[in-house]
Amino acid sequence: MSLTITRKKRQMIKVGSVTVGGNAPIRVQSMTNTYTQDVKATVLQINNLTKAGCEIIRVAVPDMEAAQSIKKIKEKITIPVIADIHFDYKLAIACCNAGADGLRLNPGNIGEKKKIKAVADCAKEKNIPIRIGINAGSLEKDIAQKMGITSKAMVASCMRNIEILRDLDFHNIKISLKASNVLQTIEAYRLISLKTDVPLHVGITEAGGLYAGIAKSSIGIGMLLAEGIGDTIRVSLTRDPMEEIRTAWEILRALDIRKRGPEIISCPTCGRCKIDLFKIAGQVENALIKSSSTIKVAIMGCIVNGPGEAKEADLGIAGGDGTGVLFKKGKIVRKIKENMLVKALLYEIDKYQKDLGEINGEKK
Amino acid sequence: MSLTITRKKRQMIKVGSVTVGGNAPIRVQSMTNTYTQDVKATVLQINNLTKAGCEIIRVAVPDMEAAQSIKKIKEKITIPVIADIHFDYKLAIACCNAGADGLRLNPGNIGEKKKIKAVADCAKEKNIPIRIGINAGSLEKDIAQKMGITSKAMVASCMRNIEILRDLDFHNIKISLKASNVLQTIEAYRLISLKTDVPLHVGITEAGGLYAGIAKSSIGIGMLLAEGIGDTIRVSLTRDPMEEIRTAWEILRALDIRKRGPEIISCPTCGRCKIDLFKIAGQVENALIKSSSTIKVAIMGCIVNGPGEAKEADLGIAGGDGTGVLFKKGKIVRKIKENMLVKALLYEIDKYQKDLGEINGEKK
Repeated sequence: MSLTITRKKRQMIKVGSVTVGGNAPIRVQSMTNTYTQDVKATVLQINNLTKAGCEIIRVAVPDMEAAQSIKKIKEKITIPVIADIHFDYKLAIACCNAGADGLRLNPGNIGEKKKIKAVADCAKEKNIPIRIGINAGSLEKDIAQKMGITSKAMVASCMRNIEILRDLDFHNIKISLKASNVLQTIEAYRLISLKTDVPLHVGITEAGGLYAGIAKSSIGIGMLLAEGIGDTIRVSLTRDPMEEIRTAWEILRALDIRKRGPEIISCPTCGRCKIDLFKIAGQVENALIKSSSTIKVAIMGCIVNGPGEAKEADLGIAGGDGTGVLFKKGKIVRKIKENMLVKALLYEIDKYQKDLGEINGEKK
Repeated sequence: MSLTITRKKRQMIKVGSVTVGGNAPIRVQSMTNTYTQDVKATVLQINNLTKAGCEIIRVAVPDMEAAQSIKKIKEKITIPVIADIHFDYKLAIACCNAGADGLRLNPGNIGEKKKIKAVADCAKEKNIPIRIGINAGSLEKDIAQKMGITSKAMVASCMRNIEILRDLDFHNIKISLKASNVLQTIEAYRLISLKTDVPLHVGITEAGGLYAGIAKSSIGIGMLLAEGIGDTIRVSLTRDPMEEIRTAWEILRALDIRKRGPEIISCPTCGRCKIDLFKIAGQVENALIKSSSTIKVAIMGCIVNGPGEAKEADLGIAGGDGTGVLFKKGKIVRKIKENMLVKALLYEIDKYQKDLGEINGEKK
């Protein structure tokens, strides 16, 4: 592949034990949608997300009970927690003391300088970063009035918030500039990436449901990553956060940045396809969903084109008329009846993974 | 929006009555997955796709019966049909004579020059274009051996196929260069766009299922469109082609290129959200799925941030604790009980659309 991505070098910070920015891998984040006060539900969701590949989790902290829950949540999870706080500096300090690994708050929203200083001092003492999260919909009034709700206004708001923290000699910062409009978001990140070397958390906000949400997030995050912009990413969907993690990894894989789990290459089927390929593809996908092996598997509709078109796959099947073939790296291994295709493929995948020293999708 | 896309100017061709390239809108295509010989099923699928926004449809032509079906299919549909042919020049000629609006075939696969000439002469007589469809998995052996399965090899194969047609004085051409690898596809299109001004059909092949397929297609097609590359697009998913059309329009909308149907801005919910937002968002999405109005609707989890963050929406709702608010352009209109939120919103949307002269989502 001659098309390579050159990542813009930024400061490296640490969120708990997870490095962000610099040469660290691009990190995958999500946010819980349980009540943070419900420790059991929140822990369960975080641990499921962790298994799916979530590396940093954010939780909403709307009140003191939520802030104090962080201590109990932290005892039962393995990834760092960022506390999301609006307006109330006491909540921020309570989260620091409860063991949060990072804060997401905009100092400009906190009010008086001494309150901001109290938060910054506490975060500095605990050595945890603050993410400034600029949202196009909640810009400071004076900036919005002067500059409109534009990407330049988002950058101005971001720089103002960075300055507030720097004036307090606080430099452990990560930033995001999200809008629900993809082009506005891309432009905001392009501009800010030239102005500061603070690590960038990238995402499209309120992206929507399945189709719109995945499309908008993939284009927005994907284009920025392809330009070397972005140190951590969050796909935002009005769906189970598990789907956000899945989409985030698909974006990273599509750009050959990071891989996790099997890649399934499958054709859309056409009038040449004589087997129930959608069903077969679904069965294979479900069987492999928990595997962390990065095997490439092809599910193709026709024997004539399938094996050749999917020759980059480690293993694959292609359908005929009630039968199909199993192929390895584009070469046909044997013919198989349709009702045995999935079983035969899964058997070969298992064998292939074991040969690679991977059992049940877990690396030894 | 100051980030604008400058489209690379290309030749304009016509597929039936639909313009492609030049200043024509970027067209949305799909491919049927019914048996083309099954005229009834194929017509039904094409007409459903047309209602969803499909502007050009491709059908597989594996045999003479399929070729002859095109005549009957054409009688009952309103969009142009492209016949997809591999290897057999007689099928191509039969499709021309059956009224196909375009052919998708690679002259290099047809064999002897006189056979290719017979196809080109027939297409010229009928005034229908030929799409050369290069696929990374089925490159000519000599090119693949010399250059590997690379984007440069794809470009070489494409130029060779273009030359074959040009030597026969055939110039009504469209091209595609698809790979299942996103970066390879992007690079191939970037290279070819510098070498020729033939209109470009853009897509990622064998992109896979829902998450991978939408993510890969959105990044690949999205990045190319953002660079001004692409005159028609095909999202390829191992799913119902209706979902391909839906995704294609989401990609065009995300880049502010073309709009179709309502845009739903919705938040991912977090620990602050006290209403069942996923359910509400799903209900609103379903209620609006057939509307062609381009209204922007916001479904937000919390009253505090929702109306402000979604102030670009024409109409929206934000959830409270068992209640919510209805807002217009960021301004709260009234408070509503949770169980009445969807009904109230749909009522307001209907009114808004009627005020715009749009009834039932159809422009007058």
